[in-house]
Amino acid sequence: MPSGLAAKEKGRLMTNLREKYGEWGIVLGATEGVGEAFCKKLAEGGMNLVMVGRREELLREKGEKFHEEYGVDYKVVRADLSCPDEACEAVFSATEGLDMGFMSYVACLHHFGKFQHTSLEDHEKMVNVNVISFLRMFHHFMNIFAAQDRGAVINVSSMTGISSSPWNAEYGAGKAYILKLTEAVACECEKTGVDVEVCTLGTTLTPTAMKNFPKGPAGEQVVKLALTPDEVADEAFEKLGKEFSIITGERNKKSVHDWKANHTEDEYIRYMGSFYADQD
Amino acid sequence: MPSGLAAKEKGRLMTNLREKYGEWGIVLGATEGVGEAFCKKLAEGGMNLVMVGRREELLREKGEKFHEEYGVDYKVVRADLSCPDEACEAVFSATEGLDMGFMSYVACLHHFGKFQHTSLEDHEKMVNVNVISFLRMFHHFMNIFAAQDRGAVINVSSMTGISSSPWNAEYGAGKAYILKLTEAVACECEKTGVDVEVCTLGTTLTPTAMKNFPKGPAGEQVVKLALTPDEVADEAFEKLGKEFSIITGERNKKSVHDWKANHTEDEYIRYMGSFYADQD
Repeated sequence: MPSGLAAKEKGRLMTNLREKYGEWGIVLGATEGVGEAFCKKLAEGGMNLVMVGRREELLREKGEKFHEEYGVDYKVVRADLSCPDEACEAVFSATEGLDMGFMSYVACLHHFGKFQHTSLEDHEKMVNVNVISFLRMFHHFMNIFAAQDRGAVINVSSMTGISSSPWNAEYGAGKAYILKLTEAVACECEKTGVDVEVCTLGTTLTPTAMKNFPKGPAGEQVVKLALTPDEVADEAFEKLGKEFSIITGERNKKSVHDWKANHTEDEYIRYMGSFYADQD
Repeated sequence: MPSGLAAKEKGRLMTNLREKYGEWGIVLGATEGVGEAFCKKLAEGGMNLVMVGRREELLREKGEKFHEEYGVDYKVVRADLSCPDEACEAVFSATEGLDMGFMSYVACLHHFGKFQHTSLEDHEKMVNVNVISFLRMFHHFMNIFAAQDRGAVINVSSMTGISSSPWNAEYGAGKAYILKLTEAVACECEKTGVDVEVCTLGTTLTPTAMKNFPKGPAGEQVVKLALTPDEVADEAFEKLGKEFSIITGERNKKSVHDWKANHTEDEYIRYMGSFYADQD
């Protein structure tokens, strides 16, 4: 437990989130990485957790840890977001009657390879996670938050949604969908009691990302510039209610701005393609 | 019929498209506006037309006109792209066995209003047109074009896919999906015989757009700056095989560049929101 100034700051945050937004927050894709870091933020802010993911046992372990450390309640919902009907039913029934005040869609699915070499079935799985389940969950909780004029949303996008992502095309397109839908909704509810933000990530030191890093010096360079999930969560929650659309990390912000201001679209696309051009 | 230099130029284009890409081109959303202008380009280039839309009679009239004027064959496919299963079946069976060499996805669906005020059913209709049917058609024809190492694609996006589009949020998100998926695929097949381009439109003088223009002086200003469908088609076909991602019209290019270089994301989003903030 922190003491002195840190404890005071932590105490302020704890009162804030629950008092401002409500008793319960849901994180879709809560098992590890950024989703887990967002759960920690909510728990620090005194909110109970609805933790959604595929690995029930692991979620339960982490929920128990948050309960012990912060005294918050938690619920685990086992759901595969590539099956939107089942996933939505599980999530909506588990949260019915709870005082919901926060949601975050962190989950995503990707698949390397040329667009036409990936089967339509795999593409539609990605669309189910990155578009359909996202849309339904966001729509469901926005209706609740708008009706009570209280609540907050932080959805997670990726710099691939800004640049496009050759050899990972559908992933970038889904992330662009999340980015642009959330930006627009953030603006629509600017003058209401609902705070909406989309948080665009560059390379982040999550377990999934670390499996895909290049080996050798290139990989070391990536790791040196990457943010930790906790750094991402700090910035995302710090800006909640202040900005619609953030890019986490100063280097990432500068990089996107430089590409947008000083290069053509085609140059940005080709640069992104250069990382994976040896995939097929 | 044009004469002199214009006829020579037209003759060159006519030989080019059919010889370069194949006998048949398909335009999804061919009935009017940009889709109709793309059909005209294909007919000028000597390609036969598969014209897809909901209004069969109107499509047949226009196909007949292209047949008479350019001597090309045409097929009309009645399909509602908000029903992906039926639409894909109709399109795939109508084009089976044809020497396909071009596709363009022009169709789109939008719905004004706050995100949560639009029913999930209406949102999913939009996703069906702007994401699911698009994905399936693009995947189908990319497989054909990649296998024969010959073909071309021009998909149509919108500046709302770059800026986001408050009070028309889902539309902007779908257009961002089309933009980023097509950009990535264009890069993936850069060094092959398949040319892929995405064409981002600003305000265009299409029948649908003209119904939605503001009234009075604001409307007159919009009309003055807007491009015609033929101007859009000229630029799109002129850049095919040369650029991945184009914004049609010099003013639109400058506007997007200015927003990207000199403003924050939030400023761009808020500006787009200012047009429709009185919608609810």
